[in-house]
Amino acid sequence: MSTGLQIYPLTGIGEVEAGADLTDVLLTALTAADQTLQSGDVLVVAQKIVSKSEGRYRDLNAVEPSARARELAEQTHKDPRLVELVLQESTTIVRACPGVLIVRHHSGCVMANAGIDASNLKPLDSRGSAVVQQVLLLPIDADASAEQLQHCLFDATGAQVGVVIADSFGRPWRNGVTNVAIGVAGVNALLDRRNEPDRAGRSLQVTEVAAGDLLASAAGLLMGEGNEGIPAVLIRGLPQRYGAGATQSVPAQSLVRPLERDLFK
Amino acid sequence: MSTGLQIYPLTGIGEVEAGADLTDVLLTALTAADQTLQSGDVLVVAQKIVSKSEGRYRDLNAVEPSARARELAEQTHKDPRLVELVLQESTTIVRACPGVLIVRHHSGCVMANAGIDASNLKPLDSRGSAVVQQVLLLPIDADASAEQLQHCLFDATGAQVGVVIADSFGRPWRNGVTNVAIGVAGVNALLDRRNEPDRAGRSLQVTEVAAGDLLASAAGLLMGEGNEGIPAVLIRGLPQRYGAGATQSVPAQSLVRPLERDLFK
Repeated sequence: MSTGLQIYPLTGIGEVEAGADLTDVLLTALTAADQTLQSGDVLVVAQKIVSKSEGRYRDLNAVEPSARARELAEQTHKDPRLVELVLQESTTIVRACPGVLIVRHHSGCVMANAGIDASNLKPLDSRGSAVVQQVLLLPIDADASAEQLQHCLFDATGAQVGVVIADSFGRPWRNGVTNVAIGVAGVNALLDRRNEPDRAGRSLQVTEVAAGDLLASAAGLLMGEGNEGIPAVLIRGLPQRYGAGATQSVPAQSLVRPLERDLFK
Repeated sequence: MSTGLQIYPLTGIGEVEAGADLTDVLLTALTAADQTLQSGDVLVVAQKIVSKSEGRYRDLNAVEPSARARELAEQTHKDPRLVELVLQESTTIVRACPGVLIVRHHSGCVMANAGIDASNLKPLDSRGSAVVQQVLLLPIDADASAEQLQHCLFDATGAQVGVVIADSFGRPWRNGVTNVAIGVAGVNALLDRRNEPDRAGRSLQVTEVAAGDLLASAAGLLMGEGNEGIPAVLIRGLPQRYGAGATQSVPAQSLVRPLERDLFK
């Protein structure tokens, strides 16, 4: 039988501090697992540890909500300071109702709360009345974060690998979150199959495959949320069409469909 | 290192005829690959071969389009007979414009053309003027199809496996298709994580994971479209939380969010 794909969880990573060298963190976890990176491997890394290593924390106590933020906060029953950060991180409000604030993030991704995360965060100070209320923003440019990580991994190991930064999004019409790629380097996030014939020799009906999101979702089977603490996954054995390990690749930005071209309105 | 997940493509399946015994087809492919099913494995099977084995073909020449179908066909530049079938297979039109007809299928899934497929089909008769123009509909009840397949696989092998029937859908706001689960048995399509604490001991922000869709997408990395002809994939090594191989499980129907509960409007 074909060896197929192998997907390995990187366990034991623990808390990632602001300023941490993510390359070190990942290579240490790989070494502990008696594993070495090979060219063509893809590392899927949770957005959360990328944001943490980049220090994308904000203290809610230091945020002054605008009038618009206060208004939206009332409408959504959310903390006006959080809403202020959501507005700063986004371009368009897609939906606001009690408990729900869905926006288009600066990256173009449509998601709840602009991807700002208030869970799983270790409070910096829990000793007094002035508890710091930290939230975590998305990376400023997740494709750039992925590219930098890819370069650093190459410099450290000589392996040309792909990097996918994954987040979990809700979706219209379907229950449950799935993982999507918000940053990709060294692997093709969007696979154009327009020149490939189908088995009857006709051209393919489905012409673009969201490969970055498939990779993120495959990794999502092992990453999960919660107390397993598996923020990175190694995928080995991808078919060549994904271009894993290539120095040129299609970034996650290609997965964003411009609002004016959206078919599902 | 943990053995992680293994995802094996089942190659060499070839054309599946109407009335074919899918259990035989899959077991033959597994045997040819020198592989035996183990309890806890999950088989992800392309919707197309399930529909084919169930003989879900329709001949467009035998379809009489209604007035509504003709009207929509003009609006979407599609064959009125195909549009008639789309209407018969669906409950709501989500979007109709030139080249695009997105509907809510009877199953509740929102997709283009009610999932009716005109690609990759072998014409039954190409010798005269009366060429049969065949299209392929979705299974009538894909959860039931998955359950039947799960039972037959157990009867034939004694292995309690999960079965996922996968299709590829486009999505709002994002380019490219991903794979989703339209039928699931023996594995939990929707994972409820509300009782699990996060690493800081708080309850999880994300409470439901679309596990069926993650499984379908992971398999989608190897299934692809086009001339590889890989319509089934074996996933081995899933964490216990997915309930793979359990006789009770959460079906794909749980992934459908009722229109009135949709947050993304």
